[in-house]
Amino acid sequence: MCRWMAWSGQPLPVDELLFKTQHGLVDQSLHSNLGPTTTNGDGFGLGWYGFPRGPALYRSVSPAWSDPNLARLAPHLESPLFLAHVRASTGTDVQETNCHPFQHGRWFFVHNGHIAEFDRLRRDLVLAVAPELFPEIAGSTDSEVMFFLALTFGLESDPVGALERTIGLVEQTARDHGVDRAVQASIGVSDGETVWAVRHSTEHRSRSLFVSADAHALRRLHPDNPRLQKLQDGDRLVVSEPFSDLPGAWHEIPEASVLTVHPGGGLDVADFRPS
Amino acid sequence: MCRWMAWSGQPLPVDELLFKTQHGLVDQSLHSNLGPTTTNGDGFGLGWYGFPRGPALYRSVSPAWSDPNLARLAPHLESPLFLAHVRASTGTDVQETNCHPFQHGRWFFVHNGHIAEFDRLRRDLVLAVAPELFPEIAGSTDSEVMFFLALTFGLESDPVGALERTIGLVEQTARDHGVDRAVQASIGVSDGETVWAVRHSTEHRSRSLFVSADAHALRRLHPDNPRLQKLQDGDRLVVSEPFSDLPGAWHEIPEASVLTVHPGGGLDVADFRPS
Amino acid sequence: MCRWMAWSGQPLPVDELLFKTQHGLVDQSLHSNLGPTTTNGDGFGLGWYGFPRGPALYRSVSPAWSDPNLARLAPHLESPLFLAHVRASTGTDVQETNCHPFQHGRWFFVHNGHIAEFDRLRRDLVLAVAPELFPEIAGSTDSEVMFFLALTFGLESDPVGALERTIGLVEQTARDHGVDRAVQASIGVSDGETVWAVRHSTEHRSRSLFVSADAHALRRLHPDNPRLQKLQDGDRLVVSEPFSDLPGAWHEIPEASVLTVHPGGGLDVADFRPS
Amino acid sequence: MCRWMAWSGQPLPVDELLFKTQHGLVDQSLHSNLGPTTTNGDGFGLGWYGFPRGPALYRSVSPAWSDPNLARLAPHLESPLFLAHVRASTGTDVQETNCHPFQHGRWFFVHNGHIAEFDRLRRDLVLAVAPELFPEIAGSTDSEVMFFLALTFGLESDPVGALERTIGLVEQTARDHGVDRAVQASIGVSDGETVWAVRHSTEHRSRSLFVSADAHALRRLHPDNPRLQKLQDGDRLVVSEPFSDLPGAWHEIPEASVLTVHPGGGLDVADFRPS
Repeated sequence: MCRWMAWSGQPLPVDELLFKTQHGLVDQSLHSNLGPTTTNGDGFGLGWYGFPRGPALYRSVSPAWSDPNLARLAPHLESPLFLAHVRASTGTDVQETNCHPFQHGRWFFVHNGHIAEFDRLRRDLVLAVAPELFPEIAGSTDSEVMFFLALTFGLESDPVGALERTIGLVEQTARDHGVDRAVQASIGVSDGETVWAVRHSTEHRSRSLFVSADAHALRRLHPDNPRLQKLQDGDRLVVSEPFSDLPGAWHEIPEASVLTVHPGGGLDVADFRPS
Repeated sequence: MCRWMAWSGQPLPVDELLFKTQHGLVDQSLHSNLGPTTTNGDGFGLGWYGFPRGPALYRSVSPAWSDPNLARLAPHLESPLFLAHVRASTGTDVQETNCHPFQHGRWFFVHNGHIAEFDRLRRDLVLAVAPELFPEIAGSTDSEVMFFLALTFGLESDPVGALERTIGLVEQTARDHGVDRAVQASIGVSDGETVWAVRHSTEHRSRSLFVSADAHALRRLHPDNPRLQKLQDGDRLVVSEPFSDLPGAWHEIPEASVLTVHPGGGLDVADFRPS
Repeated sequence: MCRWMAWSGQPLPVDELLFKTQHGLVDQSLHSNLGPTTTNGDGFGLGWYGFPRGPALYRSVSPAWSDPNLARLAPHLESPLFLAHVRASTGTDVQETNCHPFQHGRWFFVHNGHIAEFDRLRRDLVLAVAPELFPEIAGSTDSEVMFFLALTFGLESDPVGALERTIGLVEQTARDHGVDRAVQASIGVSDGETVWAVRHSTEHRSRSLFVSADAHALRRLHPDNPRLQKLQDGDRLVVSEPFSDLPGAWHEIPEASVLTVHPGGGLDVADFRPS
Repeated sequence: MCRWMAWSGQPLPVDELLFKTQHGLVDQSLHSNLGPTTTNGDGFGLGWYGFPRGPALYRSVSPAWSDPNLARLAPHLESPLFLAHVRASTGTDVQETNCHPFQHGRWFFVHNGHIAEFDRLRRDLVLAVAPELFPEIAGSTDSEVMFFLALTFGLESDPVGALERTIGLVEQTARDHGVDRAVQASIGVSDGETVWAVRHSTEHRSRSLFVSADAHALRRLHPDNPRLQKLQDGDRLVVSEPFSDLPGAWHEIPEASVLTVHPGGGLDVADFRPS
């Protein structure tokens, strides 16, 4: 059920983290360790912020491991902030419009998880999307609807509050329909400067989510690791599952919380309370 | 803006009409003569009724002229009733779920035309779809929404009335939003026994639509044409544009009317009155 | 590195063995148990013999588990003899012309395995293909070249001998280039009446290959298994890995041997001796 | 049978010439005016030279007019030298490895035209490719074989001579097989600094090819055209067919000649003499 990652820090060619890293995201598309499915072969997406031209999107239904364009583009796309996602469909079609990230203006959204019995809830949830946003819905996934609900509820001015209201609405709608364990979610959102990462599930057993440790600490902890020595202060990586098992390299984001990665690498963790 | 055809008659391998016929549908995908666009390269679909296993569907985003599976399957698919469609997108994504025919149980639906300013009307129209049908909406086209509206309005019990109510609702919704010339449509529908073909547009300048002449008459009219000599009584072909310009071979379906092709090849033409 | 299956027996809709069987081939595309890779998501192919129109082919680069056309076509394709294949690329492109089966006239060919360092041997092997067959080479895989070598060496008149000469040539060419462990192969071939299945590798550690037990014996052995009770005398299934672990249901084809499945279900096993 | 363009000059986002120009290349993919086919919907390719990371390639089997990734990437890819190509297959498969440009190191190659009866000549031509280049042949087109022949004959040290020897070999091979009118070609080649453009056909009726006039002259000739006023000295465009019919804007490259576009925009035209 999907894996994703977000980078915020020094400008990097995206292949550094997609292809060149041990157990990077493309490797996870073939054999994920922590996810409920080992294969994430139902599409790939990359949203990045370029200079000088702002947000850009590449998505493909080809599995990430075999897409020749992705392999060829990745060394040429350099960005200080990007989100990437490999998809394992929970039932909806494998089509480009169902691939993450979803984009609206400067905003990207990725999701790992699902809404339980989405077919039964879909109509009510879609109706709650603001009419002016409705025409932008291009696919058929639960994730895209969650994104447009979050935009409806003020994502652009109050990201965390909007995500809480989104999950709150989904859970309330599920209760109204007698659906249990409505939401399973790790969510990544960015406006190009800040990254927000939510870990929440109705049953309190959420998909895994990790953030990399402070770059300064990492360099001191592993003086012989050439890759870590290249990290600069402020570099941060958020991942569904760690790229490596280096001691001290990763902090698990707690259940039912939201992580904010500020420009410059500062972190905040707060409770996530659907409302 | 799409071309389509429907066959009702003796069981035929579908390649007879898709590939082996002069100016057949696959040829029209590359250079249509009568349509507003010459190229219909945004997807292909075929719905056919097999024996003994009922309706079957093949759809692809590959242009019909270059899809190797279509070329290889077509000689092996034999059916007494089938609908085929080549798509020219009017703006929505090229994805398999946007290809025609759309299917619900035994029913197939194809459409050539568009709903004007669909983006502005889409939400209201989608909301009018019956909640129990709503989860089946998989794509993003105006055509698919029209199909589910028709099902909502009773397509399975009163096909012509349901289509009239569908178009009526779309036109009323357009008026409510100040949208002119709301509907441009030639529509084909079948339940596996009967074919209905509607020609209607709000501005009374509808897409072209033709039905083949009586097989008996055609054989007498063109005694030297080997292809026409193979026609059997009851064979009928409905097409967006004629496959040939043989004198007497094609009857134009009048503006603002609905043709019914009965099993056995009998025809009815009636006024089509959106309500 | 691919999984395949072949059916010879009573006419069956192909979905019986692709989709409806426990651990059938489509399931193996997502999680193979015995293969060196768990995911076979780099394409699918089905070659079947229809009546009355002979061999037919469907191939797709979509993973078998997510191809909507395959899922919809499979219940409608009925055949007494078919081969299906799910691909895990060993390096060549994911494109339809690299999907198995390969076809020439009535002959289908599937392969699980590889030629070691094929890049270095490819030119010499391609040159050994008969000039009149050369234009039919459409893809870039080692498997397709092996098929055209087998045709060059008389597959249509002496199938086993031609396969032995093919493997012999590949192994000799590899020796000439200093390449060890040249061939790893389980191969399935059919002309629409007989199925041949080869299990061979230069290092004598070949990919697994199994054939189903005698239908009569299976029905007596498992009187309570409804699926097995439907088997008819003469039904045979050849598979890369068993669909189930029912005692007595599967015979492993020995290393370095070739199985012949005759019309009517009779089996021969002989040594396979590359020459 | 394909359209292509090459840009050499000030760094431009590629969408300026692919999408934003009247009758630009993407528009030509839907309705070419001068080519033998109006639709070039069998694939797209773009080779560009980025800074600081050298040559990059994007190719897709989606028609250029409907590829969402192309539309989204184009504004973000900026380059002082790029080649783009829209394909109309002359018979070989629609697959990514058959899309132009073909790449080898810093070299890109695009071709509009064909080799007559390529099936009959293919084996002899492929055998003439240097063994060390042979493994790079990934597709099945005549164009790719021509590129690897040119590399075999010294493209990297003597581009024009290598192209003359390539065409010479093809024409000689055709004569040996009794094939008339062997080559129809407009060819574009670049190493990232210089662009070479060949116009040649055995029958002396070659595909059209044009180069833009001197930027200085164009600005003076059309002082009111805002687009032309943005041209800088040294900007040059080579195209299969002109983007516009502005007087004085385009020079036709003569039959049987080769144009060299030097860094800085200087032009040479020389006879092209297959040898």
